[in-house]
Amino acid sequence: MNITHAPQPCTLVIFGGGGDLTRRKLLPAIYNQALEGELPANFAVLGFAIEQMDDNNYREFARKGIEAFSRQPLDPAYWPDFERCLHYLQGSFDNPDAYVQLAERLKEIESNFAIPGNRVFYLAIPPALIETCVCQLKAAGLVMPVDDHSPFSRIIVEKPIGRDLESARKVNATLSQNFHEQQIYRIDHYLGKETVQNILAMRFGNAIFEPLWNAKHIDHVQITVAEEEGVGTRAGYYDSAGALRDMIQNHILQLLTLIAMEPPWIMDADVIRDHRQDILNCLRPITSENFDQHVVRAQYGPGFHHGEDVPGYRREAGVAQDSITETYIALKLFIDNWRWAGVPFYIRTGKRMPKRASEIAIQFKSVPPILFNANHDQPLEPNVLALSIQPNEGLSLRIATKLPGTKLKIFPVKMDFRYGSTFGEQSPEAYERLLLDVMAGDATLFMRRDAVESSWAWVDNILNNWASSRTRWIPEYSAGTWGPLEAERLIESDGRKWRML
Amino acid sequence: MNITHAPQPCTLVIFGGGGDLTRRKLLPAIYNQALEGELPANFAVLGFAIEQMDDNNYREFARKGIEAFSRQPLDPAYWPDFERCLHYLQGSFDNPDAYVQLAERLKEIESNFAIPGNRVFYLAIPPALIETCVCQLKAAGLVMPVDDHSPFSRIIVEKPIGRDLESARKVNATLSQNFHEQQIYRIDHYLGKETVQNILAMRFGNAIFEPLWNAKHIDHVQITVAEEEGVGTRAGYYDSAGALRDMIQNHILQLLTLIAMEPPWIMDADVIRDHRQDILNCLRPITSENFDQHVVRAQYGPGFHHGEDVPGYRREAGVAQDSITETYIALKLFIDNWRWAGVPFYIRTGKRMPKRASEIAIQFKSVPPILFNANHDQPLEPNVLALSIQPNEGLSLRIATKLPGTKLKIFPVKMDFRYGSTFGEQSPEAYERLLLDVMAGDATLFMRRDAVESSWAWVDNILNNWASSRTRWIPEYSAGTWGPLEAERLIESDGRKWRML
Repeated sequence: MNITHAPQPCTLVIFGGGGDLTRRKLLPAIYNQALEGELPANFAVLGFAIEQMDDNNYREFARKGIEAFSRQPLDPAYWPDFERCLHYLQGSFDNPDAYVQLAERLKEIESNFAIPGNRVFYLAIPPALIETCVCQLKAAGLVMPVDDHSPFSRIIVEKPIGRDLESARKVNATLSQNFHEQQIYRIDHYLGKETVQNILAMRFGNAIFEPLWNAKHIDHVQITVAEEEGVGTRAGYYDSAGALRDMIQNHILQLLTLIAMEPPWIMDADVIRDHRQDILNCLRPITSENFDQHVVRAQYGPGFHHGEDVPGYRREAGVAQDSITETYIALKLFIDNWRWAGVPFYIRTGKRMPKRASEIAIQFKSVPPILFNANHDQPLEPNVLALSIQPNEGLSLRIATKLPGTKLKIFPVKMDFRYGSTFGEQSPEAYERLLLDVMAGDATLFMRRDAVESSWAWVDNILNNWASSRTRWIPEYSAGTWGPLEAERLIESDGRKWRML
Repeated sequence: MNITHAPQPCTLVIFGGGGDLTRRKLLPAIYNQALEGELPANFAVLGFAIEQMDDNNYREFARKGIEAFSRQPLDPAYWPDFERCLHYLQGSFDNPDAYVQLAERLKEIESNFAIPGNRVFYLAIPPALIETCVCQLKAAGLVMPVDDHSPFSRIIVEKPIGRDLESARKVNATLSQNFHEQQIYRIDHYLGKETVQNILAMRFGNAIFEPLWNAKHIDHVQITVAEEEGVGTRAGYYDSAGALRDMIQNHILQLLTLIAMEPPWIMDADVIRDHRQDILNCLRPITSENFDQHVVRAQYGPGFHHGEDVPGYRREAGVAQDSITETYIALKLFIDNWRWAGVPFYIRTGKRMPKRASEIAIQFKSVPPILFNANHDQPLEPNVLALSIQPNEGLSLRIATKLPGTKLKIFPVKMDFRYGSTFGEQSPEAYERLLLDVMAGDATLFMRRDAVESSWAWVDNILNNWASSRTRWIPEYSAGTWGPLEAERLIESDGRKWRML
């Protein structure tokens, strides 16, 4: 079974083509696709940025990035063939003349590579520059209409889209004034990971999960995204964002929609996004009543990482010394629809956790307290279906079996499946998949405007509550631990526990 | 969670204690239980048979059997301690004096080992001798009443119980005239295997299976018991029995009841056997209409085994040259109750198959023909839960996942769990578990009279149909193949296929 739209011939224009994202992710992704023959036959890249480079410098820049970051090693025999498709244009994003040059350069490349005018503009730039770039693109006549005969113009926008509902609406309004929603691809690389995509395959490629996938059979769901690292070099951005904006609003709420959505009736980007949107529409708003029973934020203090002392968040370079930015957040949320009535979703994400681990765990209800589960002092562990996203992508199901031996003892075992050991090859990087999707016009794994804004609307409730509390205090957890005591209480007061990862 | 009745102090009297079953299975089972501390503290064995031996000879006989057949090696340091519990009495089963001696010898042993008079009589003898032995036991006053103060007298009877309903009733009547049904343990070693016992643990120790365990979600069930060997040294018995009597009437119908039974409300032998009996009561009788669509028998012809020529069944030593005894049988059967309405159970068992393999496979219904299953030329493979009984005991679940890569391709993978690799120890032999169950008075895994007779009643329909056809012809399959073409047709005419094992 093979559902695919073919990537179309096009030129990929990378705004910020001399930057870090391009070097570490985008160029290596393109190189790997080229190696695997996934790219359209007629394809070229045009880096567009302020740095002074020519095509040759740019190819050298790309080569270094690929050597350092590609999942497949650079093949010197193939390189000369590959680097031909790489080009560079120096220019300032706010200079209309640069866009005239851009248009000329594109025509030239399209002529050389027999590309029928299709263009993908990748905005690998800080959010503050989005407005300038999209307006200039439009003004320069580089945005084609959406119709049956024009070549396509698509734009890829990196997160964050805004920092609250109001600012997100502003970004979206700017985008909409210059591009049609069908042309806009809001990328969230998290959604390009194999396991995330596998959620759809698993839920709708198997007959056994759907009958169990509801409040009648599921006790609760846990989503964990744990990072081992501290804030690192991102303090400038992170200290004004925090975990709620950085992880929940986009990645985790999108994961949630994939887990919770009703079955779509066709594999169509807008049908799937409509169904995911329904989940966002059903999220129960977190209000100021019982706020503390639904939201816990915290910040890491000093602690240990791989046996070495590490500083607390406020001592990190670039962080305000009195910062109350959360580096950890735990949430309990509900989806008020028929399927999920009363099923809590527990979510936690944080930096400086004991290990890097992301998973979604579906915990099923307990068996009735009879037969093997008749002993109230030793209740059977319930079935758990765990989708591990990182570090090892895979799926495991905890089931009760009989412990071998002459006595009838029940013991939980894991049936599991790991991508790595089963398929024995490296999974493609998230960006590889997502870039091809844009070239193919498949927006399934990209965030539509309504999703961005609904997520912010829900998140704003929490942000506003924090703002109105006017506290300068935030719970602390030691670096290298699983978060604050308050987060344990959040779940344990419901008689449940965070999973050990 | 630990459900156990403790084995009680007792003497195990083995009728036929000098025979093959004793040497290969029973004494090694007892030795392994002793090594693992599973036996009651006060315990002794008394072999009773026609062979001339004394206690010392018998201990030597036991030692050789254990050295050759025990799953754990004989520990010379422990042996002197163990062999003390082994005794032997020479005697003829039809001689009342032998039973007087038996009673005396038992008293002596019970006094030496502080055993309070509990006795288990294991009839490791040909069926023809059952009547003699049980009548003599009764006449000698060796069968205690079932009440609260008497020590227990239990009898273990090996299959086959009869060769049709009438003869089985006769055996059961003889047993019932001399023992209370509660004292009778009809052993089927197949039911002592880990995976078979695990059916109960799996079905009722997990919340996720029961909601799927019905006609709404299950397409069909396949039970396969394939033997690699030919008739071997058992031709004398086998040629007058055949696969239907040898495998279906007991082992496989009992497996079926464990798979198909309603959840019992308590782990009690009679409650569980009542629920299993309900399944036998609901088996749709196979009648002469459409007989060929429900039953296929066949006999192996010449062929290959591990690359060497092997003779056909009729050329095997001890087999009649015009025998039409079936060495293979395939069945389609239905359970006419609410849960299983319309779900076919396909059963096949045979000798001289390509490999030794027993499994129960639950094939779930297909996902709807939309989304990943929209391509009618390449339907998704449905989920299958397979319980492997031999050679490797384990559990596997076939699920659809996304093939890693940038395209959305669905690929079936197996999530599995193997007893051997998970628990890293040898599972106890079936006889170990079953002997302890008898000592503990737990009859769950033994066949009750009603089960034996209901099974025969159902099997008799098939036997009678064969008898009335008066044919001297039987389909043939080459040794080393998966059975005759007729068996393929039986399942393929329903649009299904036998599983590849």
